[in-house]
Amino acid sequence: MNSSSGAQKMHTISVLVENKPGVLARVAGVFARRGYNIESLTVSISEDPTVSRMTIVVTGDEAELGQITKQFNKIVDVIKVYDHTGEDLVEREIALIKVRATADTRGEIMQIVDIFRANIVDVSADSVIVESTGGSRKVDAIEDLLQKFGIIELVRTGRTALVRGEKST
Amino acid sequence: MNSSSGAQKMHTISVLVENKPGVLARVAGVFARRGYNIESLTVSISEDPTVSRMTIVVTGDEAELGQITKQFNKIVDVIKVYDHTGEDLVEREIALIKVRATADTRGEIMQIVDIFRANIVDVSADSVIVESTGGSRKVDAIEDLLQKFGIIELVRTGRTALVRGEKST
Repeated sequence: MNSSSGAQKMHTISVLVENKPGVLARVAGVFARRGYNIESLTVSISEDPTVSRMTIVVTGDEAELGQITKQFNKIVDVIKVYDHTGEDLVEREIALIKVRATADTRGEIMQIVDIFRANIVDVSADSVIVESTGGSRKVDAIEDLLQKFGIIELVRTGRTALVRGEKST
Repeated sequence: MNSSSGAQKMHTISVLVENKPGVLARVAGVFARRGYNIESLTVSISEDPTVSRMTIVVTGDEAELGQITKQFNKIVDVIKVYDHTGEDLVEREIALIKVRATADTRGEIMQIVDIFRANIVDVSADSVIVESTGGSRKVDAIEDLLQKFGIIELVRTGRTALVRGEKST
């Protein structure tokens, strides 16, 4: 994915930006120019409606990603960039998983859903939609278990994160 | 936000793209060039690991957004674009809300959290982190009620969505 030789680690990066057109394209462009693929990205409003907050999950080495976050700071509408590596985070994402479900298999699917404290949020004659909220590993695990029934469609929000404790980013 | 005179409505758009660097920047660039501000955007892997799925929420008129989704189809790594307007969707997002909480106010915060079937996922001496999952209106409502305690920090994933029933996008 990139030519650097440092240790590849998953990084969670928060970027506070002005809520204006074009900022997302510029931030995404910085990654694209360096050939970095983003694992997940979420962007939505923050506690201040004039400010949007992005959470970006990307794999790379410390030095290269340090260069990238420095470039973010040069973008006019970027207010603050924060790499959370090594911090104690609350990280969450939602997956919506549409699974094939017949009268025969629905019971077993409901058991799996219960074990993971997930929810069934839609039912049709031949399918259910399972909503699973949690850390990425939990979402991966339920996805693996539902695979055998046939996953029709799956969407994940990607991870969002806050630092534990009263400190603000 | 844009010069068109049609009715401004909120649209939820799914975009399936090859899981490659640069695609997000190009999709975001199409909105940026037309001066559109994205309300929220999530991108993460889909049921096929070579395919990423974006969910974009944007306000605009039908004709203008139709032009934009046509432009997406010209981007090499875009597989499929789908505007869900008028469809019956399951839409979900997560908010993590860090709220000031003392021994005096923690009880009242817990009541609000219970009513909304939200969860407290972190506690410190002076704060809690509330996790709320649901449609955007529910997330807006709990945010409003927690405002009076003092919101230290707030992050939302932005909306993700699947069409109800067994149909796949």
